[in-house]
This record gives sequence, C-alpha cells and structure tokens, in this order.
Amino acid sequence: MNRFFPEVPSKIRYGGKKSKNSLAFKYYNPQEVINGKTMEEHLRFAVAYWHSFKGGGQDLFGRATFDRPWNHFSSDMDIAKATCEAAFELFVKLGIKYYCFHDTDLAPEGQTYAESCQNLETMVGLAKTYQEQTGVKLLWGTANLFSHPRYMHGAGTNPDIHVFAHAAAQIKQAMWATKELGGENYVFWGGREGYETLLNTDMKKETQQMASLFYMAVDYAKKIGFEGQFLIEPKPKEPTKHQYDFDAATVLNFLQTYGLSDFFKLNIEANHATLAGHSFAHELCVASNAEKLGSIDINRGDPLLGWDTDQFPTDLYDTVYAMMVVLNQGGIGTGGLNFDAKKRRGSIDTKDLFYSHIGGMDTFARGLIIAQKIINDGIIQSFVTQRYQSWSGELGQKILSGNSDFKEMEAYVNENGEPSLKSGRQEYLENIINDYI
Amino acid sequence: MNRFFPEVPSKIRYGGKKSKNSLAFKYYNPQEVINGKTMEEHLRFAVAYWHSFKGGGQDLFGRATFDRPWNHFSSDMDIAKATCEAAFELFVKLGIKYYCFHDTDLAPEGQTYAESCQNLETMVGLAKTYQEQTGVKLLWGTANLFSHPRYMHGAGTNPDIHVFAHAAAQIKQAMWATKELGGENYVFWGGREGYETLLNTDMKKETQQMASLFYMAVDYAKKIGFEGQFLIEPKPKEPTKHQYDFDAATVLNFLQTYGLSDFFKLNIEANHATLAGHSFAHELCVASNAEKLGSIDINRGDPLLGWDTDQFPTDLYDTVYAMMVVLNQGGIGTGGLNFDAKKRRGSIDTKDLFYSHIGGMDTFARGLIIAQKIINDGIIQSFVTQRYQSWSGELGQKILSGNSDFKEMEAYVNENGEPSLKSGRQEYLENIINDYI
Amino acid sequence: MNRFFPEVPSKIRYGGKKSKNSLAFKYYNPQEVINGKTMEEHLRFAVAYWHSFKGGGQDLFGRATFDRPWNHFSSDMDIAKATCEAAFELFVKLGIKYYCFHDTDLAPEGQTYAESCQNLETMVGLAKTYQEQTGVKLLWGTANLFSHPRYMHGAGTNPDIHVFAHAAAQIKQAMWATKELGGENYVFWGGREGYETLLNTDMKKETQQMASLFYMAVDYAKKIGFEGQFLIEPKPKEPTKHQYDFDAATVLNFLQTYGLSDFFKLNIEANHATLAGHSFAHELCVASNAEKLGSIDINRGDPLLGWDTDQFPTDLYDTVYAMMVVLNQGGIGTGGLNFDAKKRRGSIDTKDLFYSHIGGMDTFARGLIIAQKIINDGIIQSFVTQRYQSWSGELGQKILSGNSDFKEMEAYVNENGEPSLKSGRQEYLENIINDYI
Amino acid sequence: MNRFFPEVPSKIRYGGKKSKNSLAFKYYNPQEVINGKTMEEHLRFAVAYWHSFKGGGQDLFGRATFDRPWNHFSSDMDIAKATCEAAFELFVKLGIKYYCFHDTDLAPEGQTYAESCQNLETMVGLAKTYQEQTGVKLLWGTANLFSHPRYMHGAGTNPDIHVFAHAAAQIKQAMWATKELGGENYVFWGGREGYETLLNTDMKKETQQMASLFYMAVDYAKKIGFEGQFLIEPKPKEPTKHQYDFDAATVLNFLQTYGLSDFFKLNIEANHATLAGHSFAHELCVASNAEKLGSIDINRGDPLLGWDTDQFPTDLYDTVYAMMVVLNQGGIGTGGLNFDAKKRRGSIDTKDLFYSHIGGMDTFARGLIIAQKIINDGIIQSFVTQRYQSWSGELGQKILSGNSDFKEMEAYVNENGEPSLKSGRQEYLENIINDYI
Repeated sequence: MNRFFPEVPSKIRYGGKKSKNSLAFKYYNPQEVINGKTMEEHLRFAVAYWHSFKGGGQDLFGRATFDRPWNHFSSDMDIAKATCEAAFELFVKLGIKYYCFHDTDLAPEGQTYAESCQNLETMVGLAKTYQEQTGVKLLWGTANLFSHPRYMHGAGTNPDIHVFAHAAAQIKQAMWATKELGGENYVFWGGREGYETLLNTDMKKETQQMASLFYMAVDYAKKIGFEGQFLIEPKPKEPTKHQYDFDAATVLNFLQTYGLSDFFKLNIEANHATLAGHSFAHELCVASNAEKLGSIDINRGDPLLGWDTDQFPTDLYDTVYAMMVVLNQGGIGTGGLNFDAKKRRGSIDTKDLFYSHIGGMDTFARGLIIAQKIINDGIIQSFVTQRYQSWSGELGQKILSGNSDFKEMEAYVNENGEPSLKSGRQEYLENIINDYI
Repeated sequence: MNRFFPEVPSKIRYGGKKSKNSLAFKYYNPQEVINGKTMEEHLRFAVAYWHSFKGGGQDLFGRATFDRPWNHFSSDMDIAKATCEAAFELFVKLGIKYYCFHDTDLAPEGQTYAESCQNLETMVGLAKTYQEQTGVKLLWGTANLFSHPRYMHGAGTNPDIHVFAHAAAQIKQAMWATKELGGENYVFWGGREGYETLLNTDMKKETQQMASLFYMAVDYAKKIGFEGQFLIEPKPKEPTKHQYDFDAATVLNFLQTYGLSDFFKLNIEANHATLAGHSFAHELCVASNAEKLGSIDINRGDPLLGWDTDQFPTDLYDTVYAMMVVLNQGGIGTGGLNFDAKKRRGSIDTKDLFYSHIGGMDTFARGLIIAQKIINDGIIQSFVTQRYQSWSGELGQKILSGNSDFKEMEAYVNENGEPSLKSGRQEYLENIINDYI
Repeated sequence: MNRFFPEVPSKIRYGGKKSKNSLAFKYYNPQEVINGKTMEEHLRFAVAYWHSFKGGGQDLFGRATFDRPWNHFSSDMDIAKATCEAAFELFVKLGIKYYCFHDTDLAPEGQTYAESCQNLETMVGLAKTYQEQTGVKLLWGTANLFSHPRYMHGAGTNPDIHVFAHAAAQIKQAMWATKELGGENYVFWGGREGYETLLNTDMKKETQQMASLFYMAVDYAKKIGFEGQFLIEPKPKEPTKHQYDFDAATVLNFLQTYGLSDFFKLNIEANHATLAGHSFAHELCVASNAEKLGSIDINRGDPLLGWDTDQFPTDLYDTVYAMMVVLNQGGIGTGGLNFDAKKRRGSIDTKDLFYSHIGGMDTFARGLIIAQKIINDGIIQSFVTQRYQSWSGELGQKILSGNSDFKEMEAYVNENGEPSLKSGRQEYLENIINDYI
Repeated sequence: MNRFFPEVPSKIRYGGKKSKNSLAFKYYNPQEVINGKTMEEHLRFAVAYWHSFKGGGQDLFGRATFDRPWNHFSSDMDIAKATCEAAFELFVKLGIKYYCFHDTDLAPEGQTYAESCQNLETMVGLAKTYQEQTGVKLLWGTANLFSHPRYMHGAGTNPDIHVFAHAAAQIKQAMWATKELGGENYVFWGGREGYETLLNTDMKKETQQMASLFYMAVDYAKKIGFEGQFLIEPKPKEPTKHQYDFDAATVLNFLQTYGLSDFFKLNIEANHATLAGHSFAHELCVASNAEKLGSIDINRGDPLLGWDTDQFPTDLYDTVYAMMVVLNQGGIGTGGLNFDAKKRRGSIDTKDLFYSHIGGMDTFARGLIIAQKIINDGIIQSFVTQRYQSWSGELGQKILSGNSDFKEMEAYVNENGEPSLKSGRQEYLENIINDYI
C-alpha cells in the first residue's frame, strides 16, 4: 500500500527524543513496556475517518482547501473505495491499530434509505478485507445523524416521528456495520439532539424520545449479538444552541433518570469538556469516578475560541493529567484514544496528516510516561492521602456509613474547638508536575 | 418603623404605568388578580438579607462604599439588632412579604461555636418579634459555610473531618433557626464545596462526604419536625475553581447517585445559570421538567463578565421566560422569588435600595402579566403542540412505551420514504414574544 | 415581480401595533416622521445579499437545508440572474431601499480572474437595471477575500505576494462594481486577515502589507472618481484564530499608525462587538466618539455561544441603545442599517425570510421611537450633565486645556479635603429605560 | 534578616534539575550566562508588594486566611514597618533584585491627604535604607487609585473634579516616592478608569480627562527630574464592567489620539491579556511590534474562569512564547518581570510564598533557556523567513513603499494566473516547540 502517501514511503518509526527527523516518533515506542503493558496497549490510538479522510479544511467562511487524490474519481462509490484504501495506507504507515467512523464517512448516502444500506454493505465488505490484510481494527462505529437536512431539528429528539424512524433505521445499519467489522464499541454523539430555541421545543418530550431510541439500540444489540460497549459522547453546544448531552454529569443524570445506566459508558472529548466550562481532566474524573469512562476523543480546543476547534493534542499538561486518570482507573478497557482532531485549514499537504498524528501520539506517549512516573514515585498521591487522613478513622467510617448525626458533630465541635488551618499546597504541587515535564 | 429610611417615609404604592414617581410601582400591584391568584401570591418576593443589609459595595479591588446607619454601633450585637430593625422597615416599606438569610447575616459569629449559637438564639428571638409585628415571613434560611477561613477547603467536602463536624453543627443551628422562624424552605449553597486544583483533591471522596452531610440534615429535620423544603442551589464556579453543584443536571445526578432525590428540590439562580453556560430559562426548565423547581434567586449577570455580578433583574425577556416556566408548572409552591441581587458599588444611597427592588419587582410583575397573556392566547403553545403532533398517534405511544424496535422503524422508512422538512419558525416565534412586550 | 415569493403576493404594510398579521409591520411605518426625518430616512435598512440569497442554512455539521427556486438552474450565470431577480423582488416586497453585496454573491467566480471579471460585469448590468426599475439602491459593496482557498492564509496579509496581487485585483473590480451601481460606501471586512498561529506569522509585516493595500484602494478611488465612504468592519476572531481588526479601538489604532485615518470610517457589527467582549452600544460609542461611526451591521449574537450566530435583531434593549448613539451623533450619514443576519438553519421557508426581516425592522423602528423619546424627555441626559457639572467651571477648563498641574491639584485637595461620595444611580437609570420600553 | 521567615533560614540556591529540594531552583541559576547576559539580567524578576505582603487570601466570599506575623502590631505604621522588613527579608532569601509597590502598600492611608503623605515619606525613608542594605531595587512604583471609596466612579475619569484633583495629588506623591527610591519605571493601571453602565457615563469626556492627567504626570516628571519610563497597563474589565485600557491596541490608540505616544510604553500582564480575549504572546507581540513593550506582569489566568485569578506562572508554553518575544526585541530594557501573582487562598503558609515564587522563577528560567535555543537553532525563524520570501523582491518593495497600484496588481494576476497553495505547517511547528520542551 503505497498509492496515496508516496511522500512517506515507509512506516513511521521510533527515533528517540534526540531524533531530528520530523517523520519519526520521539517518544512513542509502541512495544516499550510501561508498568507491564506496551505503549500500544496502553494508548490504543485510533484515527478518525471523518477528519482525516473526509474533511477538506472547509469552514463557515470558506470552501475546502485540501485536494486529495482519493477524491479524484467520478462516482461516489469509487471515491469511497479509494478513500478506504488511503485510510488503511495511513493507518499502517502511522502504526495506528484502530480507527473510528460514521456510516456516511465510509459509504456515500444513496438516493433512498435502501440504496444507502447497500452502499454501506459494499463498503463494510471492503473495509473488512483491509482489516484482515493489515490487522487494523475498528475501535467504534457510529451513525451520522446530523449532516443530512432531515435531521435539522434533531434525530431521536425530532418533533416529527418520521425523522425518528429514519434515525432508528440508520442506527440499525450502523450497528450492524460495527458488529460486522468487529467494532469494540458503538458511540452516540447527539449532534442535533438539542434545541435552537426553547420557544418551539418540548425539552421533556424530546428527552423521553431519546431514551426510547437508546432502549431500542440496547434491544437490537442483544438481537444481533453485538457485545461492544455503548458510549455516549457529551457536548454542550454546537451545532445546536444547546445540546442535551451537555457534559458528563448531564449524561449520567439522563442515564439514571431513564434506567439506562447499565448499558452505557461515556466517550469524553477534550474540546467538548472545555466548551462546557470544564477542564479535560475534570470530565475524565467525573466519568471515571462514576465508573463510566469508556473511551476518549483526544484533541484540544483553543481556550480563547468558543467553538470546537478540534486541534491535534500538543499540550503536555493535558496529556499528563489525562493519563493519570486513565492509569488510576486501570486503563481505558475496550475504549481507546481516538484522534477526533483535524489539521488547520492551511495545513493542506498529506504530509501534514503525518506531522499532526505523530505530534499527537508523541504528546500522549510523553503523557503516559510522565503520568506513570508520577504514580510510581507517589509524592502527589501520598500528599493527597495524608490530606484526607482524618477521615480514615472510626468517626469517618461512622459518618460515611450514615451512623452519625448532627448532635454528635456538635458535641465534637464543643469538645475540640476550632479546626486548625492547613495549607492546600497548590503551588508546591504544580511545581512538582513541572519537575516531571 | 421609620428610623433607617426616613427618605422613604411611607410604603411604596402602585402608581400605574404612566406614573412619573420613581418610588412607585408601575406594574406590581400586589392585590391584582392574574388567573385566580394575586400578584403577591404568584411572585412571593423575598429580600436577601446579605446583599441588602450586610453588603457594603466592596469588591476585590476596593473596600466598602456604603455607609449605613445600622452599622453605627459599637458592639456586634447592637449592630445586628439595628440591622434587623432596618431590614423589617425596608420589607414593610417595599411591601415584600418574605426574606431570606444566612445564620451569620442575622447574628455575628462569636469567639466560639457556643457563643455563635447564643448570638443566633438572641437574634432569632428578635426577628420572630418583628415577623409577628409585620406579618413578614421567612422564605428560607441557610448557613454561611464559606466566609470563615476554616471553610477555605470546603465545609462538607473538607479533607479535615473536624471542619466537616463544624459545618454540620452550624447547619444544625441554622436549621433550628429556620424552623423557629417558620421558614418554608432551607437552602444549601455549597460556596466552597468544590476544588481549586484536582492535584490535591479526591473528588469522589468529597462527594460522598457531601451526601453524608445531606443525610444528616434530612435526619435532623425529622427529629425536630422541620417540614420545610430542602433546596440545593447550583453554581458552576466562584469562589472555587469548580463547584460540585455545577448546574441543575449535575445536582440532579448527584441526588440520584446518592438516593437523595426524594428530599431535595432546586433553587435556581439566574446568574448561576448563565455562568454555567445555560440561559436562565434553560435551568428553570431542566429543574421543572424533573419536578424539582423549588424556588428562584432572581438576579441577572452581565453576559460579558465572567463572575457573579448579581445585578437586579431588569431584562424583560428573562422575566417573561422565567414566569412562563413557573406558570406552566402551576406556580412556585412553597418557594418564592428571592432578590439575590446587589446594587452596584457606586449606588451608595439607601434610596438606591428602593429603586433597585422596585425595578426588579416591576420587571417580574410585567413578566408575569405578559407570560400569563401568552399562555392565555395559546399561540405559541398551539404551535408547539402542532409541531409534535405526529407523536400523539399510535406509533408514538408504541415507541415511548418501549414496544417498538429498529425493525419496525426501518419498515416505516422503507414504506414512507424520506421525511419532509418543516420550518421551526424561530424568528416568527421571537417576533410574537416582542409583540407581547 | 412576483416569481419567487408568491406566498407574499404584495408589499408588506404597516398594520400598527395591534395588528395580528404576522406579515405586517407593527412599528415600522416608513413615512412616519420622527424628529424631522421619516423612519425610512433614519433607518436606511439594507438587505444582505449573502445571507438572504446565497446562504443555505448549512453549518459545520450539516449541509444546506434551504431549497431555493432561484438555485434551480443549470448554469452558474443563470442561477446568478435568477437570484438577482429574487433579491429585488424581496427588497420591493419588504419595502427596503438598500442592499449590500460581495462581488462573489452577485456573480459566480470563473475559472480565471478574467472570467470572474466578465461575470461581474454582466451581473452589474443586470443589477443596475433592477435598481432603476425599483428605486432600490446599493448601500455598499465589497470583495469576498475569504472563501476561496487562495486566501486561506490571508488576502492583503498573505505571506505570498501573488495572493496579495490577486486580492488587490479583486478589490479593483469590486470597487468598480460598487461605483457603477452608485454604492454609497465600500466595506473592508478582513475575514482572513489575521493568524492561526503566531509560530508561522510575522504580524508586523502583515499589518504593513494591509496598510499598503488600503493606500492602493484610496488611490484607486481617486482615479475612478469613487466618492463613497470607505469602511472597515472589525471582528475579533473567526474564521481565523485572531483577526487583525479585533475591535473598533484596534482599527482606529491601525488607521492612526499608518496615517489612514482621513480615509476610513467603521462599520460596526453587533455580533462582532459581543465576540470581542464589548456590548454593541460600547462599540458604537467608541466609533462615534472618534467621529468614525459610518455604518452598522444589525444582527445579534447569542451571549452563551462563542461564534458569530448572526441572528436577526430582536432585543429591544440593544436597538434602543444603538439608536441613542445614532441619534446623538445626528444620524448614520451615508451609512445604513444592514441586516447581516441569517435565519436559523431550521427556518427553511422563504416566508421565514419575511418574518425575520419584518421582526428586525420592527425592533429597530421601536428602538428609534423609544430612543427619540428618551432624548426628547431629557431625563437621562440631564442626569448625566448634572453628574459632570463640576468640570464645566474654570478649573475644569484649565485642566482640560493643559494649564493646570499636580501642584495645583494638591493645593485643591489640601484646601477642600476629602471629596464627598455621590451615587451613580445605575438601577434608577435602568428602571427609566424599562419605563420607556 | 531572619525574623519573619525562619522556616527558610538561608537564601534559595540553584540545585539543578535533578534536585529533590522543593526549596531550591531547578533551572534558575542567576549567574548563568545565556547569549551574553546572565539569567538575572535577562529576567529582572520583581516581587509584587501587594500580593505577597498585603494580600490575605480573601475573596468576595470569604475573609482573609493568611495570618502573617508582620500584621501582629497595633498601629498601622508599626505594621507597615514590619511588613517592609519582611518584604526585604523575602527579596533577599529569594534572590530577587527588584520589587514593585503601590503607595498604599508601602504606607497606610491617613485620615487626611497630608497624613497619607507623611506616612509615605516615613516609609520611603525606611525602604531606602533597606534598599541600600540589600542591593534590592525598585522596578516601579504606582498609586492605588481604586481601593478607596472616593474612586468608586473613577480617579482621573471621575465625573467629580474634586476626585480628579485627589488622584492627581496622590500620583504626585507616588511619583516622588518612586523617584526617591530610584524606581526605573512608573506604572499606571486604571483600576477604576472605566464604566459600570453607559447610561450615566460620558466616555469621551472621561477619556479626555485621563489624557489631561497623563500630561500633568509627564510635566511633573520633568519638573522633578524623574527619568524612569512611564508605563500603562491594559486590562479589559474588573473591577469595572469595562475598563478604558482594554488591551494593548486600545491603549496605543489612546496614546496616538492624545499625542502621548512618546511618553508611554506598556506593561503587559498575562492574565489581563487572556481576559481581553488575546493570548499572552499576542499582547506581547502587539506591544513589541509598536516598540512599546516596556515591562511584563508575569502571572497566569485560568482560561475557564472569567476573572483575574493572578496565579503564579507555571505553564511552560506561555513562558517560552513570552521569552521569544522578549529576546527578539533585544530584552526587556528598564522593565522587568513582575510577579503580579498571588498564592491561592488555601496556600496559607509563608513557605508557600517561597514555593510559588520559586516555581514561577524556574518556569521563566526554563522559558528563557528554551526560547534562546529555539532562536539559536533558527528552524522556526528560517521557516517564517522562507514563508515571506516573495515579499523581499522588487515588487514587494514597490508595494510596501507605496509605488504600486491596483492596475499593476491586476496585470500581475493576468500574467501569472492563480497562486499556488502552500501549507502553513502549523502542526509541524507545534511539534517542534514540543521537541524543545
């Protein structure tokens, strides 16, 4: 496979941190073992089919700038096939073992639902062949329920039951495709599941509709024997004015409200976290604390811009904190680190596709190495443990198990007087993190 | 009572919308009946003791600018007593029937917990007398668990069990005071329940601590026979970097996670909503949809400023939308509309206290009048009903009751083809709102 | 002209504020005289060709939803001609006397620069005919220097001189077209004049390039006898990470730095103001204070969203404040109020085009009526005058003319002691504004 | 001097990057030479008197948490003297050679202006003695014109001329103090120079007043022979709703408008930059490009919080970019790097004062080392030079010197056709930065 990226004739290799080769990894060394697992096993990187192969650099103020050879075909299906070939060539050359897609990334929409299904079936067959040839696997699949005009007022939450039915049918096919390709997860990102104005919206009804859709999906998975993990990906806004899956806590609340907690975990995206007013680490923690951190979309936003910039991850602080959460929960399980990231509009060369992924992989590899070292050294963890020491005694147990009361607390205060103040040592801890970077 | 506000010698009266009197209501006419209830019954305004009597106009860059006669006393208790008298004088002159307080607003903290309790008992006695004399009632009480240095790392969520105990003891007293004064609700606003940095924080442990504290409160209410409604007030940040009660959905998730849903409702604050990235109306809807909208803190933020400006409500769009939610859920119940709002630092006169409350009351009275008219006319509601019409048939019922599946949906699409597109009519609906204003 | 909007068969008329006709003006009565000028003369509304005729409701997550009859032609030029006809039909039916365009809105880009020029010439001829037939005039023209890939790294600020040359050539044609159509202004909005990352950017060099481009434009205007006003439209970000024309003050600084102040005024856009962290009124004031407020793009943003939503203006507070600035500077001169606003993606009907413009026109008409009343009544102005009273004496003159010094000031303080505090009465003034709404 | 910080008995030393001593520098090695200057000469660190000695950890929701021994005195002047001693002890122990102050940091305000002057004179005498004893110097002085209630509506921009006079008199004294102590700069930060609401504000008049005040200062400097650099520090908002010195461009525009450019440079603060919607690097570039970058306040904000958090700088990306700007302009001149940063409210120990400064110094030392290496290696600079290559020829000169025109540009396009597209290589450049960190 050397048809679409001839400027990178062979696989990207690990060159070490002193390498001057911009097409080599400086830190990502797939087979290097960190605490009993290889880097590859820890990080489970995935390429996002949509950004890397279907994205053209367009934005709201300008059309596509990327001119890709795989689009130089006359029929939609020929483009789809060439794109798939290009994709696997990139996966192999980058040494990335997973990918993720929407149904409409892989296969073009037809004039009818039936034709769309047929296109998808054809393309699933081709992708399967490439998977077998290359050993690359599907991290997750999903259905694009936001680009087509029919979904302009929502898919599962559409006021028109006809649109709901279409969304359901489309998910059916996408789940089938995911199963067929051995996908380890299936993701729901509700890109139009929200509202533009409360004036025309019955938010409660729409949320109930969404729950019904999820129950159908759970049911269908059983029917077809799909055992992958269902994931919901929160996002606060964009494209709609307000998305129903605002953030991790909102999704967890929805799942509890409708009795769906057992069936879903979360796919946390860095840039979605920051758009919701949370740090990436915060959202990872919230999900992990609830034992619901299933997978991660690794990108970054620009904290001074109010939209989803989906930049490649290059900030070491972010990757260190993220990997601390992942390591502390024992790994990302069947999930992975999906590059839901796009090169800037001006980075038009296919070579830029390599630079951007290499940079992201190295930044996360460094994050992994540093996070593991921080955990091994235990300085921060022992500070934290010490800080909560007073809760580990008998009184703490009594309180946390619901066996104390206000009277006991008052008696404690009357006996012990005013608590002494203890420094939280934030700056000291921040210095320690910098020592590791 | 005419000691502290001699410049407003008598009660503020309704002058009608053509009145040129800046000390008269233009719209708020307490006994005017709107859909079977008086304005006073609908709106249940409350004055916030902290902002209106304890606030001095200070900010992070400058000390207090308000020079209040009720502070011109030498002992803390004399100041507290004069403040209480001033407060009831204002309540009566404004014709506001409710107030809200923190324990430390009403009574000064002593050198010891015991002394603080004693101060509170004295002041509760005085407030009770004034309540009886004036007919003014307590909407809700709460404990200030954020100003004292001991709470710098949290109250219920403090890593030090000693501080937790102090918080619990203080709540005990504040609940007692609330009950003693006939308070209809008790509020928890977790002003330091959050974190400054995840580096020194065990978020999961802290959340569990908080749940334990709430269980103690529920238990204590039973013990003392307090039957008021418990309310939690969400806020996303400030003073901490990240508050655990970020927004309505986050609190609802917390309540479900710890089995506390039956005991708590929400107190939604306008400015807290906007700081969390939601409109005021959104947060009211989320709470109301969950049947958890218990009370409202009516203020407004500045959308271009990133902190809690707590301005008096003057935006008619906000009050119309808010009152539509309240009317649609059948009223605010035992809650009310509390002015958690402060005059600007430069509005130093006590007369400004009157202007600001009058303006806020009139803006909400107008919101009520308009919202009721919109509901009565039914134009918007019938548009919405029509929009969801397709869900009211048999198929809709089948789906929502969990009796349909993907196969049926796919069959529907195969039979009915592509859904037709329907305008959401946002601009048309926005025009209608303007027609009412 | 009744080919493209048959559902609105005749001109929109003034129905008065009690009208129930959603296709009538409630407040905008073009010939009604307000302080010596008709509403039409005051407001000088213009339709934005791009949003209303070339926009399709697409966003970054979905393709166009509007299906317009004027696009149902096979050649680009036939589409352009039909679009132009539709545009004038809408102008006439709405009773709007001005429009604004980019070169590429009116005429399709050709394969070469020469072909683009030819297309533009043809379309200018057609537009001229329609202008003559209808009496509709061109408020301003501009060149689209942001959509084509060649401009991905800027137009005037491009690192490649070849792109600069293309931008210059394109402006030449757009200025010619504007002159040919009697345009009263020519606008520069630097949609790609900014940077994505400072790492690859020489900001100083790029700014100098921009100044050179503006000098060429000034020069060319003289050569061809174009006497319209040049306008620069600030925007802080989007599409680039950081635009050079961040806000009014930034543009004024640029103009002073490069000696261009005499030739340019500002076109202030509401949503660009708020994205820059300023209120719409603030930016209007800054421009007006510098005697540089030339024209206005009337839309609104969503304060909770971080991108240019370009919604139709419906907020009365915004329009009252805007019209106060305009009236206080004696009108908008040769500028106007251009609807740089787009219907929401879900408002797909051409009828929605009418609702949205009617709503915007009514909201500004109301703003005009109220602002004039506030000015006539003089309550606010006399408060402000009184507030600055102390500066109107001899000492004030001395200070402002540079004839006082620190010693005199110190002597004044030693003599007069501590200044007394005076309330700024913000809430009182806000109440007054509400009394007028 | 070992009275106030006995827990840090001796001077902080350089321990090298492998040091495990949290009270040693890992990177800051004052006498190490980088490109011909020592680190100390490059960085010119200064301690901010206000945050480090007068700040108590208070915020809007809670009183001070820091209990400092230098406040354990009964009279204001005794506190001031002890504070000054503590300050110099810290300077010496940290090895920081500069400090910065407001008049009211150093000396308590008296009952009258005259008394304030007297207090200041006394304290200036003491500070002078300590300066001589320790060799520590004054980087800059300033007057606090924002904390006292008299300044609630502005100082120089106050509607009351009496307040203006007081501000002028206070600046006179602060300038005298700065000169007396050999201060190398004098800073104006207009903490109340802005507005709360446009309704009561004449922005143009207020700006003129401000210009008059600056002229008086320039004049007074000549009179007393103060030859330090005047600096204006931009900030967009907080404490006022909108500050007149919004950002660098706004201040540069003001200076040009009032003919003050020759007398002022800018003091750029990191957190003020980000609050204004700019990156720290952007504001440094804007100032530096205008040859107006005079000094820097080094702190950092939290991009998810909307107020001035003034955290200590710990982000390496920020310090690398900042030092690249400083090195590229040939150093910071008579300015320096002032720690306008405060420890978090919970970092209550004096030891935390050391941790926080050490961390900030190390982060900037690392930024310096890396930035110099990037400059030396020239990879990024040569990429940028290459990118603008096409402008270095004859045509570029012709355009930039104003000797070309639209016709020539058009001819160029007709001859050369469509420009080719070139990648901006953002991700590649970001990777390179990470290679250096």
